[in-house]
Amino acid sequence: MDPLERAQRCAATMFANDRASQALGIKVEVTAPGASVARMSVREDMLNGFDICHGGLVFALADTALAFACNAYNRLTVVGSGGMDFIRPAVLGDELSATAREDYRGRRNGFYTVEVHNQNDDLVALFRARAVARDEPLFDEG
Amino acid sequence: MDPLERAQRCAATMFANDRASQALGIKVEVTAPGASVARMSVREDMLNGFDICHGGLVFALADTALAFACNAYNRLTVVGSGGMDFIRPAVLGDELSATAREDYRGRRNGFYTVEVHNQNDDLVALFRARAVARDEPLFDEG
Amino acid sequence: MDPLERAQRCAATMFANDRASQALGIKVEVTAPGASVARMSVREDMLNGFDICHGGLVFALADTALAFACNAYNRLTVVGSGGMDFIRPAVLGDELSATAREDYRGRRNGFYTVEVHNQNDDLVALFRARAVARDEPLFDEG
Amino acid sequence: MDPLERAQRCAATMFANDRASQALGIKVEVTAPGASVARMSVREDMLNGFDICHGGLVFALADTALAFACNAYNRLTVVGSGGMDFIRPAVLGDELSATAREDYRGRRNGFYTVEVHNQNDDLVALFRARAVARDEPLFDEG
Repeated sequence: MDPLERAQRCAATMFANDRASQALGIKVEVTAPGASVARMSVREDMLNGFDICHGGLVFALADTALAFACNAYNRLTVVGSGGMDFIRPAVLGDELSATAREDYRGRRNGFYTVEVHNQNDDLVALFRARAVARDEPLFDEG
Repeated sequence: MDPLERAQRCAATMFANDRASQALGIKVEVTAPGASVARMSVREDMLNGFDICHGGLVFALADTALAFACNAYNRLTVVGSGGMDFIRPAVLGDELSATAREDYRGRRNGFYTVEVHNQNDDLVALFRARAVARDEPLFDEG
Repeated sequence: MDPLERAQRCAATMFANDRASQALGIKVEVTAPGASVARMSVREDMLNGFDICHGGLVFALADTALAFACNAYNRLTVVGSGGMDFIRPAVLGDELSATAREDYRGRRNGFYTVEVHNQNDDLVALFRARAVARDEPLFDEG
Repeated sequence: MDPLERAQRCAATMFANDRASQALGIKVEVTAPGASVARMSVREDMLNGFDICHGGLVFALADTALAFACNAYNRLTVVGSGGMDFIRPAVLGDELSATAREDYRGRRNGFYTVEVHNQNDDLVALFRARAVARDEPLFDEG
């Protein structure tokens, strides 16, 4: 199977069942194995007490981008750890995009960077994460 | 004003406006200045494609606990950076509790640890964060 | 074998061969399985271009404390990742102590916090790390 | 003053006084403002109890690369926090190179990635750090 086709089939399998990302209105595009873009609009119910987007939801967007980037090889892969630097706040109506890239992938651990920008291409957050692959497929390649 | 009373008044001011935490069904209790417990039940719309709680929502719970712990001194305080280690998955119906404590607080930066446990007291995630205080009050102390 | 005795025997095995920690003048004491204190004096050859202790050497001190804390169970354990927050500089002649504690230990991954203080008990740095245990002993328990 | 000339003059000012990097045998080259390469050979006195390069010294190499990358603008800049993922061990005689790049630079905080490779171009460690700039020059631009 072609690597991009495999990555996109993994993504389709995951997304169909990903109620959390759907509830947040997130759209994901897998652009290459190990790379993806996830998009989310900041809604009223995403604002915290300071009228800015809750950091956990910015994290959730980046984490979704990461999940679709790292689950490209038909091996079930989960996030082991992730850290986010919050650069500037996102506010109501912002159109956020999280772009994930693979920095390094070993046998078991993969390392990823996700940059979250707003609609003006200002950097909102930087996310770095380690993903852990299991010996279990997402779908049967036959 | 008594320090715990100040912390709880900050919390009430924030929570009333915190639509994101409310939408996630999070309840928060400030137990001391710099300390809090936030609780969340894992709902169907919080599950990712692998039928476990989306990591971003576990992060959101911990981040809420942190926000209420660090905003105890009537200085508007935001999260600068935070990292989470995911220890074990949370599943549908789990009752998660995130307990925040202050490791160190300087003039501007404060450092916090949040532990997220499930209803069996198993550790789900460890969160460490740096919060940045501004010279701006949450409410007028008169 | 008694757990503390095992931890201290692991430490003795490691330290005898730890040329790096010896060259930095670090002394280590294992106080319990998963806990240790490492001490280092800031020397002239540890100063960076700004006349403060090179951050890498503060990290090295904390990393040594961690290594002796996590290698307490007679399973060869290495650091997978570690992050340090630098709170205040250390200067020539400072007597630093790094105190490591175990936050959580699973089958394979363990999580540790190390606090580095100076001789006035001021916090110099906070270090959080993940250690990975292998199925290989440090010494033969017979 | 030309930006690269300014960066290299900052580097020369710092390096002349950086006894720690000198003692570790580190050589640094500033390739552009915000970018640098630091090189270090793994010596006998850098090995830990497991006969691999002490993680603190791999960190020190990356931290040196970072310091010279971020101190390129003639504003005294220190590391606020840094995290390292250890990918594979470095051993005696390895020729390590740490390549720093600037991911984002704001008014006060800058974010950097440093990759440490060995002489076979295998990735040894990934380092991400936040640097904090002060309103203080490294040298008088006249």
